[in-house]
Amino acid sequence: MDLNADLGEGFGIWRLGDDAALLDLVTSANVACGFHAGDAPTMRRVCARAVERGVAVGAQVGYRDLTGFGRRHIAYDFAELRDEVLYQLGALDAFCRVAGTRVRYLKPHGALYHAAACDESQAAALVAAVGEYDDQLPLLCPPGSVLAQLATGAGLRAVAEGFADRGYLPNGRLVPRGAPNALVTDPEQVAQRAVLMATERNVVAVDGTVIPCPVESICLHGDTPGSVRCAELVRAALIDAGVPLTPFA
Amino acid sequence: MDLNADLGEGFGIWRLGDDAALLDLVTSANVACGFHAGDAPTMRRVCARAVERGVAVGAQVGYRDLTGFGRRHIAYDFAELRDEVLYQLGALDAFCRVAGTRVRYLKPHGALYHAAACDESQAAALVAAVGEYDDQLPLLCPPGSVLAQLATGAGLRAVAEGFADRGYLPNGRLVPRGAPNALVTDPEQVAQRAVLMATERNVVAVDGTVIPCPVESICLHGDTPGSVRCAELVRAALIDAGVPLTPFA
Amino acid sequence: MDLNADLGEGFGIWRLGDDAALLDLVTSANVACGFHAGDAPTMRRVCARAVERGVAVGAQVGYRDLTGFGRRHIAYDFAELRDEVLYQLGALDAFCRVAGTRVRYLKPHGALYHAAACDESQAAALVAAVGEYDDQLPLLCPPGSVLAQLATGAGLRAVAEGFADRGYLPNGRLVPRGAPNALVTDPEQVAQRAVLMATERNVVAVDGTVIPCPVESICLHGDTPGSVRCAELVRAALIDAGVPLTPFA
Amino acid sequence: MDLNADLGEGFGIWRLGDDAALLDLVTSANVACGFHAGDAPTMRRVCARAVERGVAVGAQVGYRDLTGFGRRHIAYDFAELRDEVLYQLGALDAFCRVAGTRVRYLKPHGALYHAAACDESQAAALVAAVGEYDDQLPLLCPPGSVLAQLATGAGLRAVAEGFADRGYLPNGRLVPRGAPNALVTDPEQVAQRAVLMATERNVVAVDGTVIPCPVESICLHGDTPGSVRCAELVRAALIDAGVPLTPFA
Repeated sequence: MDLNADLGEGFGIWRLGDDAALLDLVTSANVACGFHAGDAPTMRRVCARAVERGVAVGAQVGYRDLTGFGRRHIAYDFAELRDEVLYQLGALDAFCRVAGTRVRYLKPHGALYHAAACDESQAAALVAAVGEYDDQLPLLCPPGSVLAQLATGAGLRAVAEGFADRGYLPNGRLVPRGAPNALVTDPEQVAQRAVLMATERNVVAVDGTVIPCPVESICLHGDTPGSVRCAELVRAALIDAGVPLTPFA
Repeated sequence: MDLNADLGEGFGIWRLGDDAALLDLVTSANVACGFHAGDAPTMRRVCARAVERGVAVGAQVGYRDLTGFGRRHIAYDFAELRDEVLYQLGALDAFCRVAGTRVRYLKPHGALYHAAACDESQAAALVAAVGEYDDQLPLLCPPGSVLAQLATGAGLRAVAEGFADRGYLPNGRLVPRGAPNALVTDPEQVAQRAVLMATERNVVAVDGTVIPCPVESICLHGDTPGSVRCAELVRAALIDAGVPLTPFA
Repeated sequence: MDLNADLGEGFGIWRLGDDAALLDLVTSANVACGFHAGDAPTMRRVCARAVERGVAVGAQVGYRDLTGFGRRHIAYDFAELRDEVLYQLGALDAFCRVAGTRVRYLKPHGALYHAAACDESQAAALVAAVGEYDDQLPLLCPPGSVLAQLATGAGLRAVAEGFADRGYLPNGRLVPRGAPNALVTDPEQVAQRAVLMATERNVVAVDGTVIPCPVESICLHGDTPGSVRCAELVRAALIDAGVPLTPFA
Repeated sequence: MDLNADLGEGFGIWRLGDDAALLDLVTSANVACGFHAGDAPTMRRVCARAVERGVAVGAQVGYRDLTGFGRRHIAYDFAELRDEVLYQLGALDAFCRVAGTRVRYLKPHGALYHAAACDESQAAALVAAVGEYDDQLPLLCPPGSVLAQLATGAGLRAVAEGFADRGYLPNGRLVPRGAPNALVTDPEQVAQRAVLMATERNVVAVDGTVIPCPVESICLHGDTPGSVRCAELVRAALIDAGVPLTPFA
């Protein structure tokens, strides 16, 4: 099983999350590329440390929206989005190259992640960018998303990720944020769900049924002290359960 | 002899210069990388057309200053500048890769070009970025500049460029803008000076003396109708004089 | 009748449209405020010249999107949009104050203009910003828009504008761009339509019926040489028809 | 005596310093205006809370440099800087107006603060902006600065500020950062120095001599837990010493 997290999401003087702590926990680092967050010195630092830790670096690409942290939907057209994604891929790859690695996968951020789940044009832009840049790069996708379908259709590898700290509907989708049971807040329970995902490829839905959850990566968070501790518990529980932790890419 | 010009210096809806006309004239295109000018779709378009025309693509890196078009000095520290240059190099390389080529050289823009002529720290940042990214990339430098010295000292190739439309002092430096004879405005005379640079490696200084001008590239401009016509004359005169036009990189 | 046009839409070194020509033709200048276009020196220059010409200055507020020129929809929430509109209003008002006038009205730009026609939350954000800043400021609105309804409901003045160079459907809405007859391209015909709007408050719809068009301002364009000449014809035709031209605000 | 501090220096999702804590301690709030830090919702929130607390709002204007937090010198020309300062003044004033107050003073930030101490052109740009916008607005200045001289010469009010947590040279200037005794780190000692500034208009220089320190405001910091506690001690010591705390503007 792979563990991924968003990293390098500061900008200039501002910091967000605990990059150093998470780099000791994850196997894949989704590194912000400067459009919704991230700046050049931060990208360099995170890539260098990821290499030291044996962590795979992925391009966490987003909308060009520092003010909104990439969380507001923007109606990009296909070509603009494809090209801005290529720009971000290349920029991050420079720091990977300097650190002795390469970008190993792509994951969309924020509103682009949500758009890629259902918007054909924006999902296609991500697929086109990866296909043009390096068709060996996997895309880390919402499970069952349009992005995953289009990527697979284009001969690219789509990697599904799971969320041990989110509630699942019986149909396999996430409980929308704001609805009851959207979040699983007990760290012990989060860790147990991660183990179930890794060992049985299952998750317990909000109605108590056990449903398939065939993910290759589990997404961790690190923007609060509590989330870092939760991530530590997830990692420890997986190791205790004998699950090998290794990058998917 | 190589002919270089700044290209892709629009941003979003805004255009600057006549990219299409210049791509028929130059052998090397200094493509703006998004910090002082340039956006992702423009970078893609210019790189694609450059490849069609057999024109080498170079990274025209600049300060992060869209408002000032990179023409205002910014007191970057070494590491910030190195990393922002790496970011720009990587971003442009993505579009080169998609177009079937690679970034072939680096040229600093505007205030960074001027800083690189005399500021050790900023020149060193450019040298460090190129050395880390690809030590086979030449740097297109102001002649006699600190940048050229540091690049050479680091084992990189420094390529000197000349300006057929600028006056030269007897010591080989350019007459400062604003001073008498800073600009050569007669297109025929500009073309003759280009031929002299290419065939004799000389230029006539403002005091009438003939001085060495050992350049490997001549910089053309294309931001006015007059400048495009002048560039056409320079190119035609060099061809008439039997000078082969080929990228330096 | 009032004539309005978008002005000050350059940024930094880049220019767009012919501000000087339009300031001789319009009675109201929609001045870009720096978010989709416009920079501080341009805002100052346009405001100063508008005052010289007796032209009213309005705040042409837009999304924070220089790359997309404010033409891409962005899913702002209510409070963010209200506050970014207030920011732009205040910034432009500083240049009005220095020029001896004040912001006299507000007009949304691009994708925000279109959103304000139908999106309750974004329209409400514009209304809230104006209501808080100065409830005597009119809003220049798409006719029949949600923005006009909400503004009126909040006790603000909504001013409808017409487009002499656009086709109208029998229901009073514009023919969508891209559909047949969306644009009226013959300058003489545009001028006649402007006169009909000004003198009879009517327009001829695409099916030949004459429908009411109760507008207080006609929008001119100036981003091509042809559009400036068309604007000149419109102005001349209105003056010939005895229509007084005066700012609505 | 007045107590001032920098506030509203987050951007988008990112936070910096403890605005709420400082607004309970200061009498004047230097609010960032969006160029080096600060965004529209933050400006609104800080202005509203400042009014609730009876704190005067000043425009903390800076270079347009989010990446560098306004701490890198930028070679603005006079007119560009004057106009960008006007833009920031107007933008903040919109939020003051909504909160029921007005911008009450101006203080330059970061590298602009340092430039204003010695660079005639940049200092003059600040003076011109204030003079044009509202010649009743005081400027909060480095003591003995070119800015203070030019402001006074232009008939504006220059207010000198002191730093209770910085070492002073016998000539009244601050010990440069990095040099020995540049910082006073003991909170009790900082508080005592503030009381001496407020009651005797003196400070003890690094050589032990007591020198005049005729300041009207003392600058507090709030970007670390320690700095907030130190600010609390300063405030308490001044109140204990019977010094009335009131905005200078």
